[in-house]
Amino acid sequence: MPTTRDETSPAAPTAAVRQKIPGTRDSSLGSFFRPKTVAVIGASEKPGGVGRALIENLGTFTGALYPVNGQRDTVFGRKAYKTIGAVPTQVDLAVIATPAPTVPGIIRECVAAGVKAAIVISAGFKEAGPEGIALEAQILEATDGTPLRVIGPNCLGVMGPHVSLNATFSKDMPRTGNVAFLTQSGALGTAIIDWSLKEKVGFSAFVSIGSMLDIGWGDLIRYLGDDPNTHSIMIYMESVGDAPAFLAAVREVAPVKPIVVIKVGRTDAAAKAAASHTGALTGSDEVLDAAFKRAGVLRVSTIEEFFSIAKMLAKQPLPRGPKLSIVTNAGGPGVLATDMLVECGAQLAVLSPETIAELNKVLPPHWSHSNPIDILGDADAPRYAAAVAVAAKDPGADGVLVILTPQAMTDPIATADLLRTYARMEGKPLLTSWMGGTRAKTGRVILNEAGIPMFDYPDEAARAFANMWHYTESRLPRAVPEVAEKPAPFVPEPDEAKVTDLIASVRRRKGTLLTEYESKQVLSLYGIPTVETRLATTVEDAIRAAESINFPVVLKLHSDTITHKTDVGGVKLNIRDAAEVRAAYSAIEAAVKAKHGTGHFQGVTVQPMVMLKGSELILGSSLDPQFGPVLLFGAGGVLVEVFKDRALGLPPLDPYLARRLMEQTKIFKVLKGVRGRSSVDMAALDQILVRFSRLVAEQRWIKEIDINPLLASPERILALDARIVLHDPDVRAEDIPALAATL
Amino acid sequence: MPTTRDETSPAAPTAAVRQKIPGTRDSSLGSFFRPKTVAVIGASEKPGGVGRALIENLGTFTGALYPVNGQRDTVFGRKAYKTIGAVPTQVDLAVIATPAPTVPGIIRECVAAGVKAAIVISAGFKEAGPEGIALEAQILEATDGTPLRVIGPNCLGVMGPHVSLNATFSKDMPRTGNVAFLTQSGALGTAIIDWSLKEKVGFSAFVSIGSMLDIGWGDLIRYLGDDPNTHSIMIYMESVGDAPAFLAAVREVAPVKPIVVIKVGRTDAAAKAAASHTGALTGSDEVLDAAFKRAGVLRVSTIEEFFSIAKMLAKQPLPRGPKLSIVTNAGGPGVLATDMLVECGAQLAVLSPETIAELNKVLPPHWSHSNPIDILGDADAPRYAAAVAVAAKDPGADGVLVILTPQAMTDPIATADLLRTYARMEGKPLLTSWMGGTRAKTGRVILNEAGIPMFDYPDEAARAFANMWHYTESRLPRAVPEVAEKPAPFVPEPDEAKVTDLIASVRRRKGTLLTEYESKQVLSLYGIPTVETRLATTVEDAIRAAESINFPVVLKLHSDTITHKTDVGGVKLNIRDAAEVRAAYSAIEAAVKAKHGTGHFQGVTVQPMVMLKGSELILGSSLDPQFGPVLLFGAGGVLVEVFKDRALGLPPLDPYLARRLMEQTKIFKVLKGVRGRSSVDMAALDQILVRFSRLVAEQRWIKEIDINPLLASPERILALDARIVLHDPDVRAEDIPALAATL
Repeated sequence: MPTTRDETSPAAPTAAVRQKIPGTRDSSLGSFFRPKTVAVIGASEKPGGVGRALIENLGTFTGALYPVNGQRDTVFGRKAYKTIGAVPTQVDLAVIATPAPTVPGIIRECVAAGVKAAIVISAGFKEAGPEGIALEAQILEATDGTPLRVIGPNCLGVMGPHVSLNATFSKDMPRTGNVAFLTQSGALGTAIIDWSLKEKVGFSAFVSIGSMLDIGWGDLIRYLGDDPNTHSIMIYMESVGDAPAFLAAVREVAPVKPIVVIKVGRTDAAAKAAASHTGALTGSDEVLDAAFKRAGVLRVSTIEEFFSIAKMLAKQPLPRGPKLSIVTNAGGPGVLATDMLVECGAQLAVLSPETIAELNKVLPPHWSHSNPIDILGDADAPRYAAAVAVAAKDPGADGVLVILTPQAMTDPIATADLLRTYARMEGKPLLTSWMGGTRAKTGRVILNEAGIPMFDYPDEAARAFANMWHYTESRLPRAVPEVAEKPAPFVPEPDEAKVTDLIASVRRRKGTLLTEYESKQVLSLYGIPTVETRLATTVEDAIRAAESINFPVVLKLHSDTITHKTDVGGVKLNIRDAAEVRAAYSAIEAAVKAKHGTGHFQGVTVQPMVMLKGSELILGSSLDPQFGPVLLFGAGGVLVEVFKDRALGLPPLDPYLARRLMEQTKIFKVLKGVRGRSSVDMAALDQILVRFSRLVAEQRWIKEIDINPLLASPERILALDARIVLHDPDVRAEDIPALAATL
Repeated sequence: MPTTRDETSPAAPTAAVRQKIPGTRDSSLGSFFRPKTVAVIGASEKPGGVGRALIENLGTFTGALYPVNGQRDTVFGRKAYKTIGAVPTQVDLAVIATPAPTVPGIIRECVAAGVKAAIVISAGFKEAGPEGIALEAQILEATDGTPLRVIGPNCLGVMGPHVSLNATFSKDMPRTGNVAFLTQSGALGTAIIDWSLKEKVGFSAFVSIGSMLDIGWGDLIRYLGDDPNTHSIMIYMESVGDAPAFLAAVREVAPVKPIVVIKVGRTDAAAKAAASHTGALTGSDEVLDAAFKRAGVLRVSTIEEFFSIAKMLAKQPLPRGPKLSIVTNAGGPGVLATDMLVECGAQLAVLSPETIAELNKVLPPHWSHSNPIDILGDADAPRYAAAVAVAAKDPGADGVLVILTPQAMTDPIATADLLRTYARMEGKPLLTSWMGGTRAKTGRVILNEAGIPMFDYPDEAARAFANMWHYTESRLPRAVPEVAEKPAPFVPEPDEAKVTDLIASVRRRKGTLLTEYESKQVLSLYGIPTVETRLATTVEDAIRAAESINFPVVLKLHSDTITHKTDVGGVKLNIRDAAEVRAAYSAIEAAVKAKHGTGHFQGVTVQPMVMLKGSELILGSSLDPQFGPVLLFGAGGVLVEVFKDRALGLPPLDPYLARRLMEQTKIFKVLKGVRGRSSVDMAALDQILVRFSRLVAEQRWIKEIDINPLLASPERILALDARIVLHDPDVRAEDIPALAATL
């Protein structure tokens, strides 16, 4: 067996990744999961070898199995073939476990033999350096334009429990079930299979995805989305790979099948270098979170949560609402579960008068008379069953959690036994937590076997319920009443062509930084209101501009090289007369020349001093290497980095998505009006975000934008300052990352 | 067995709680944990009865055991006595399990018989209503001035594993060990004992604390602090009871023995009714958090974390630093653990060159060469052992986590076996996570038995390590270099007497609200700088005041009845001349009279318009029913409720505690200077917080204070507005909650 490292290094999307058109279906993947004929290339009898493990593990496969080995005539009594071409029938799936340098040749033979699917188990490719990368290129070249699809290399393989297919070198096969599990760590995959056997969780498919040379998340999600045996998809992810393909597939599948991801490992924001607020604030993990949210992926952060959700999805229906009823024989654990339930954004069900009356009939007088339903320390199995029956019937409950602590009169086994009746309640998940160690053991086994998820601790169960509810919630119809409450204000169509021209002119001067004046022009042309800004290259110009605007005014440095005006004393506020204009102009000029030299001072802009009371917002965009342009909305002004009250989103936005983005911030409440203050015109703000996202989406030479502050008052919304940075002149258009999302 | 509800209702500290002087030692508690003679009052043979369970469970007790039963001559062959008085020897501990109404009489008999300790198992007291409360009062009356101490009522009892004492009606006795476990939920207690048997965690003491009629947390913590068998104290808490006694005991014991609390159930802030920012923002759970932090308690929020810490404390030393080395046979789980480790505030150890050289000798060439130490998928047991030996020796590592995933060549049992050598490393905890289900089982048992904590998931292990480190960290010497970096500014001693007089004058007018003018006087007298504020009861007065202060000025309503001036248009900013003073005065007067009537307008105050650029802070105090006065520090101004950037603390403060309080907020970074801005005079700010805490501590008639904003600029720190509310005139001095903390 080769000494392989688990595939943990982030697989950046390389140019080598096969370009696929999002939206096209890949029915050929069926050969991986439902092959009729399988060949193992590198099959052997060598103890501890992968080739032997594959042949052994494929022993249960119901179709035809062909060992391929250049040196042997038989492998474990099966006739072995010298090459894949020598196999007498059409091979659907080839599993390749030969040394890396031999793989491109074998792939060529597979193509020639008309094989439809290949799993490359072998390691020694990209992760091994330049030689491995060259081998990968050869494989892609060999498959290009052919029907052959490849999973791997450097993976554990694929399992299809429903057809007894174990095309991996891991011995244990999971039970059949309806959860598809995709993993970027083979070792974690084996641990999860082992765990699934104990917890009686069944799988419809298991894929160790390896280096994603050809087949990535998007292909598998789309295939499993159509697979009738798969009801939900669980993913252990280390890198997202081809982000647009992933998002497009999720967008299609998530509305009908839950997709749960545990994503680990943070990488540094590549955009950090950019001297921009937005750039500095945008970490790639935050971007990924935003993308997951946009696509409807449920992301969890601990293995415990991941397993909890897997159990729930495998065994119980999704709740239709956030309200849980808790039946318990002890108050304390009920309170613990309640704390977690509420912290995770779900609720306790309120018992209806009918339910209370029913419970009064079946419970002793001192029961709690509210939810959590404390059925008292001496509760026996029939009392548990009676309480669960009543609680589940209440239309106000969206699920039931049963907690059992081992007290003197408690019968964990009989109670588990009686609960089996409630294992399948239409639209109402049943969860259990038999607390303690050894005394709870047999009861747990009974519940697990009955398809009732069992949690070590009641708070874990409550969190699992809340997570299930959040998934349901994310699939509710897109409706924000306020978005439609008033017609969108009239805004002229963006003048895309003029902006393109303006940007082209900056690029002609080999510039990457638009001046504030130019930046505001761009915003204006896209219908984003900006404060009146006049250019002045002499003191006298500046005084004339100020007089025409009316005092008080603001003077700001005009420069196409200096990024942060404040840092060089380039902003003078509240200028009240001509003398002050004169003083401010000289001060800015002197400061810039002293700090940066003559060429950097190109005059000033004159703007009215805006006295409106309102909220200072920030609206920005920056570039993520995987997801392309990313939007940022939040509380702006000087404290932006202190409070970090912000949310990220992917362009393009519509008014609904704009509103959802803003809602994630705290400043949103202020915009809607607090403590007697009036609301900002939210429909207008929606439109500004939509327009901004369009600007970012359409003007691909723009690398970063900061509008900070965007002043939002009940009277007006106004960009007071703006900064636009373009891509370097030597960047080629085709190298600019594309939009990852669509509307 | 009586049908009892688990004791979940919060036990508010009642006047009935025995007053104890914090700091006195209660050696009498020894009779609960190391009695020589035990009597069971209510002993019986009735199947399923508590009296029978007690006699059975006490069967293992090594001292003398006396059943007491008025109706029987023997109980299970032991001679039974009619009353406690009839027992021929001195009884150390009486365990009472008779109906509630009989208990006061029995307690009187115990007192007469010279019994030192009584556990009242019986339910039916406070939780049962007025009659039960009366019974409790009778018990207190009977024990008043006597040496008899009482645990309970309504509890499961006490266990002392080191003397084989199981004075509970729960059958299972934990192993002997060094963790003391106190629980306010008997049922959760039984679950934890059951769990401890499975996980091989041993206890030095187990106490189901019940209603805390006499003995509360403080007594037990102090006793266990002196108990040589107890190395750490774990608490499941539903209510804190006598808060000052709890804090005093924790303060004494936490520096030498870890105290870990899982506290559940939030109660509404009792101070909510108060029409004050501070009041509205102070939730009692937040107060409890602040108190725990002050006292050095480690608080966790899930049972999983609670169990994880119990395992660690029972089996391994505390880490001396935050750096963990991870040895793993798979990359993925190592990354998962790293994510959690960093999120929880600990770090990966950086391998020294010597360690890397040593690892190169014992590992195959492709090992990760950094931490996590990936020893590759084919790692056998000796390779694991060799890697752990090297990793543990590195002085840069404060602990080692070993992760095992079940791969083809993995030997979970042999690996566990070899690791036993490293079960005791001085000052370096060893943690393990054998992942998967059935295949990891036997290895887990071996590690558990060897005293090496085993976690289901590697991320749980990483969190447990981080929690242990935070505990170590909380016990590090109190040293903040900046606090001493410059001498405290000269501030005159507070003029306590003058403030007492001023408050007395307000109380004489039956007022509860100080005017802004009076509030600022109070602050000034305590050395807290306030903006110059002049009172004016006529327009002409106001103009004169403004002229003497210099324009621009601010005019504010002067009223001892109106709470929020802004809401009635009672604040006019940036007034630039006499005409504007006139207009502002009339506007305020008219608005107040229109909205509230003539009596509420009592003139205006005139203050300079402060143009300093700085941070707006809030400094406040409010009253918590359990912890007395609570301080609040945070970002102030109009957005205080939006960003909720605040921290709570208990008075009194010294400069160190003041700094620690401020450090918990985000605005702290701004005060220290960000993006080229100068720092505020932090030593002066420390002093202002210290002075404020003294004001709150000394002036007990004050119920709430808000200083909002407290303007902090590099030049000055200045209270711009202040609001002081007194207790209602009919509140008696003795009913005002005392300070819970001391310096």
